Amino acid sequence: MTEVCSQEPVRRLPDWLQAQAVRRPRQRAIEATTGALTYEELLYAALSCAASLYDQGLREGQRAAILLKDSFAHVIALHALIQLGAILVPLNWRLSAAELAYQVKDCDAQLLICDAHTKSLADEVNQIYDFPAGVIESSKLRWDARGGSRGVFKSDIDLTAPHCIVYTSGTTGRPKGAIITYQNHWWSAMGSVLQLGLRLDERWLVPMPLFHVGGMGVLMRSLIYGTTVVAHNGFDVERVDRALAHERITLASLVPAMLQRLLEKRNEPYPDTLRAVLLGGGPAPKPLLERALGLRIPINQSYGLTESNTQVATLMAEDALAKVGSSGKPLANVRLAIYSADGPTSAPHVEGEILVQSPTVITGYFNRPEATEDAFRDGWLHTGDIGAFDEDGFLYVLDRRTDLIVSGGENVYPAEVESALLRLDGVLDAGVVAKTDTVWGQVPVAFVVLRDQGLLTDETEARWRTQLREALAHYKIPQAFYSVPSLPRNASGKLLRRELREWVKTRC
Amino acid sequence: MTEVCSQEPVRRLPDWLQAQAVRRPRQRAIEATTGALTYEELLYAALSCAASLYDQGLREGQRAAILLKDSFAHVIALHALIQLGAILVPLNWRLSAAELAYQVKDCDAQLLICDAHTKSLADEVNQIYDFPAGVIESSKLRWDARGGSRGVFKSDIDLTAPHCIVYTSGTTGRPKGAIITYQNHWWSAMGSVLQLGLRLDERWLVPMPLFHVGGMGVLMRSLIYGTTVVAHNGFDVERVDRALAHERITLASLVPAMLQRLLEKRNEPYPDTLRAVLLGGGPAPKPLLERALGLRIPINQSYGLTESNTQVATLMAEDALAKVGSSGKPLANVRLAIYSADGPTSAPHVEGEILVQSPTVITGYFNRPEATEDAFRDGWLHTGDIGAFDEDGFLYVLDRRTDLIVSGGENVYPAEVESALLRLDGVLDAGVVAKTDTVWGQVPVAFVVLRDQGLLTDETEARWRTQLREALAHYKIPQAFYSVPSLPRNASGKLLRRELREWVKTRC
Repeated sequence: MTEVCSQEPVRRLPDWLQAQAVRRPRQRAIEATTGALTYEELLYAALSCAASLYDQGLREGQRAAILLKDSFAHVIALHALIQLGAILVPLNWRLSAAELAYQVKDCDAQLLICDAHTKSLADEVNQIYDFPAGVIESSKLRWDARGGSRGVFKSDIDLTAPHCIVYTSGTTGRPKGAIITYQNHWWSAMGSVLQLGLRLDERWLVPMPLFHVGGMGVLMRSLIYGTTVVAHNGFDVERVDRALAHERITLASLVPAMLQRLLEKRNEPYPDTLRAVLLGGGPAPKPLLERALGLRIPINQSYGLTESNTQVATLMAEDALAKVGSSGKPLANVRLAIYSADGPTSAPHVEGEILVQSPTVITGYFNRPEATEDAFRDGWLHTGDIGAFDEDGFLYVLDRRTDLIVSGGENVYPAEVESALLRLDGVLDAGVVAKTDTVWGQVPVAFVVLRDQGLLTDETEARWRTQLREALAHYKIPQAFYSVPSLPRNASGKLLRRELREWVKTRC
Repeated sequence: MTEVCSQEPVRRLPDWLQAQAVRRPRQRAIEATTGALTYEELLYAALSCAASLYDQGLREGQRAAILLKDSFAHVIALHALIQLGAILVPLNWRLSAAELAYQVKDCDAQLLICDAHTKSLADEVNQIYDFPAGVIESSKLRWDARGGSRGVFKSDIDLTAPHCIVYTSGTTGRPKGAIITYQNHWWSAMGSVLQLGLRLDERWLVPMPLFHVGGMGVLMRSLIYGTTVVAHNGFDVERVDRALAHERITLASLVPAMLQRLLEKRNEPYPDTLRAVLLGGGPAPKPLLERALGLRIPINQSYGLTESNTQVATLMAEDALAKVGSSGKPLANVRLAIYSADGPTSAPHVEGEILVQSPTVITGYFNRPEATEDAFRDGWLHTGDIGAFDEDGFLYVLDRRTDLIVSGGENVYPAEVESALLRLDGVLDAGVVAKTDTVWGQVPVAFVVLRDQGLLTDETEARWRTQLREALAHYKIPQAFYSVPSLPRNASGKLLRRELREWVKTRC
């Protein structure tokens, strides 16, 4: 009997922005603090900005780092790079120059785009890593939203091509560049639609930084949908409250610390047009969830990683109270499992490492074959997080990567902070763990063994803080230092952070 | 500089029905005349039905034809075949046994599933083409919606694999089997979401036959979304009106003839929950559109083909009056062009063959390399339809495949009817074209040259109708026969149907 042939997998699509400029030319694409554009205007702006970057020496396939606090400039740069076919490397402006230089060197970035707020940090980075095509302030880039340039670099999107490299710290503390492709974005966008539905007049508020996958995901999804992003420059509680109350916001992406501050002042519900608040970046305390649901705010707790390009599980608002503490069920097309002695399982009440299969999962880290092999074994992404399912298939994340500290939505890896501590004068040994914090969810605290076994003075601590700031982002600096005679280590010398966490509970 | 690697295209997903049974177990999947099931129940029903078909000798990759008027049985059979990995061949019960036998022989169908309404037709087909595994009445298939069988045949969907073969007549009248893959369905479903948005409580009414891509598309989309299909057994105007008025229908798929009959009786708007009425299967007359829009019925005219697995362009309700007669703009990820002397163009006011690029487009016809090569040249689907864009990028279909007659949503190819006419006693030559009809949009009429140049008597016409019914579906039988001395043909003998259409306007 004749076989019926298979089809080649879909690999190319018409360019998303060019298509929206035809399908929805006058639909608002972006509303930001410093500007707003329709899809037609955004295409023109992106094309002329791309031409400008090309003139600066940037070519298809090369990496372009962006270090922008101005979300409007960030959006235009992101789209310009897509039009040019260059690979975006979004940088976290909370990091130190040394941390940033490591990332741009790792990925051979060709140039760096900054704004007035980040210019001095960008120049510092450029002193460590000399960008082949230099540092460019976004205000120096030509762009014209009224059709100045109509040249098109490429009219297709290759779904399998890399869109960006996003750096994520590992358990060792050495950042790894997660390569996110266009198809990762496509499947994230569709997973979100199948979870939340879609309105054609969607307005998605993102007061989160755009350099993480959470913020970037909102930009890419809205592009794919042809809907509106409302982007703020950082989190301003009054402004977010005003937007939710008066600006017809339908979706909002927040981290628990933002929700916490928002609800400190809020006593009445937001309008019904607010369909869902996606809460990512670490677990939310139960009282916060209860207060939010009491105000009829439709909280959708989610679980995701950079390596899965945002959420892979979401707890819908209607299950929020019955399943407090859960991250919900896997999104459409996602398979989650727990790594058990018998291999991957979805059986209830088995605790183990959370495994992910999803078309949103990256293939690997840039130039890091070993780390890639370690994280992507047997067809599963090994998250390093510990979790379990309940009898209804709801996922509970019990421990984020054992040691990971999530502070205000930012990941802090103890190993990285410990390395920095060990470089300080007088520090013989150091251990860093999380302490619960009402504002930030968690903050890092440090236990240090002093070389001279002496007391830790305020002067020493102040000097340390200054020194640490040269190497580490602000949110990674321990909130407190505790001098101890020795640290708990096992026979092979491995630090027992679980024990340190007990110390925090009893001593701090 | 190191290249950043591409990713393999996404090829496999968790099985859609199995996933919905976990994500939305108690969500209603299907509401039909003879039954209703949740997603959990539908999975059990499909698995046990698949086991039953396996027992009948059906295996993965084999073709299974279904000839079902009972939409509930149709839905269960469709899902059972997906679970088994067998390829669905949905048959049109309006066709004659001879027409059906051609199709099942062409694709080597292993068995035929029928119901009480289609049993005698199925037996007739079986007398012409002897099904290896026989004809099975759906009531004889075991299925249990309460978890009788939990065995899973396969847990993944291969997006590149064929899901079904749908027969479509060509200009020559010889039907061709369009191979529709799972990814064709996925991209259709997503194209629809990006055009219409998505509600999680979507209820999609489909009074259209499920054997065409229009009806099947509703089943596959709702599966992918995890939402509800409301399927009727054929079009009953009272029942459709009641459903639209009282059963919280959000989307409905209709052909113009159905809308026409619906609006003959309707004098008030339907509830606002009705978000969109997708109107496919041929052009709708302007007065009908105006009446519908007067009743605030959100009509979305669409243009599509079997080869593009449903619509590739849709006119949104808000543009309906400004752009009467247009089929709208291309859906997301779809590229349309007009074949001009200078190649494919999207320039306005250029008339020519409509070309389609879309991830929903099939790769080809089963076992028909020449027809495939002819339709899929230079990376475009050549539709055979003639169209043009206006200055705003709206598509106008000027002539459906020149000769195609669309009668009540069904395609009628003149060449096929003419072949049947030429086999009748006393017919020397025959030409078939469309005549406008207030109920069906179009109906076929025939011009015949009699061998004895005599008059066409009522007796002869009645005898012809009986004979034609053996070879042709009812809707293909000419509504009227006109005896003429000769037919207009060009120098090479090609029938000039354009001239016949003029005759219809002036003489009929």
